[in-house]
Amino acid sequence: MISAQHYKDAVERASALLEKAGIVITPEEHARFEVADFGLGELENTGLEIITYVNTQRSCAKEIVMFAGQTCPEHWHPTINGVPGKEETFRCRWGTVYLYVPGERTPHPACKPPKGSEAHYEVGQQITLKAGDQYTLMPDTPHWFQAGDEGAVVSEFSTRSTDDQDVFRDPRIARAPKVGNAG
Amino acid sequence: MISAQHYKDAVERASALLEKAGIVITPEEHARFEVADFGLGELENTGLEIITYVNTQRSCAKEIVMFAGQTCPEHWHPTINGVPGKEETFRCRWGTVYLYVPGERTPHPACKPPKGSEAHYEVGQQITLKAGDQYTLMPDTPHWFQAGDEGAVVSEFSTRSTDDQDVFRDPRIARAPKVGNAG
Repeated sequence: MISAQHYKDAVERASALLEKAGIVITPEEHARFEVADFGLGELENTGLEIITYVNTQRSCAKEIVMFAGQTCPEHWHPTINGVPGKEETFRCRWGTVYLYVPGERTPHPACKPPKGSEAHYEVGQQITLKAGDQYTLMPDTPHWFQAGDEGAVVSEFSTRSTDDQDVFRDPRIARAPKVGNAG
Repeated sequence: MISAQHYKDAVERASALLEKAGIVITPEEHARFEVADFGLGELENTGLEIITYVNTQRSCAKEIVMFAGQTCPEHWHPTINGVPGKEETFRCRWGTVYLYVPGERTPHPACKPPKGSEAHYEVGQQITLKAGDQYTLMPDTPHWFQAGDEGAVVSEFSTRSTDDQDVFRDPRIARAPKVGNAG
């Protein structure tokens, strides 16, 4: 669990990055900023700051804010009982994000997995996304991503988001018990 | 059909609005800007400028640019043979857009339908969207929208987009034969 003070600080920093990206959110959205440390307690290394704009049975859109060097750990959106898993497009709006997907390992990648968690990162083909670049991930595709030196703001367009069904490579990670909104 | 010169001018003006909104597109996206006049030949009054970021079987995202006072005419996304129609969320990123949906008619609305087309506009409950505001439309819901005095940039998050299935109130409108990219 993130402390109220850490939550507040993270939201303040994430809001500043959104502002740099020219993205406007409402006070209601600001009040429900999600700060996720994936239960690892090292938000600077492993974490995301998220505003979910809409999430219906069929469609979802989010703004994802990442601090410099912050990593979303390797996971995938599984197809369950024939119901296709989540399909998602990441579109970088500001900064740089490095996305890693299955395929030939990129030599000399820009990022390393967070220290101590290397065993839980497998895919290694690097996709570099700068402002205006995007990449679409089909269900069941393992992926992880890390922000560059300035941080990043990334729009996610997808089918319904069901975080509790995500499968993480790292068994320590529990995504479902969302990290609290201290407000 | 829009002339090559009108297409080029519209893309230039739309690009300037995207820039004001702080939204970055790639040269490839710029080269396939869609300029739609819905076959009415009065782009200033009735039209949209669109970049489709992604449109798969399940998910779609677009950036819609509107000039000052420009209108997207009344239409809906029908459920066909039990397949639910398109569901879409409009999120205003910059400027102001007035959205009209079924419900109690708003007294003294900000917009009027384009001159000469009044007969093809029925719904009249006004939803005002400024930067950061959004509204989700379920399938089969008639709607139209018009930009305010500065124009507007609106993100659309939706299920699969199938323009050729859209039903327009105005029988003169043919959405399917897309207005050309002169490039």
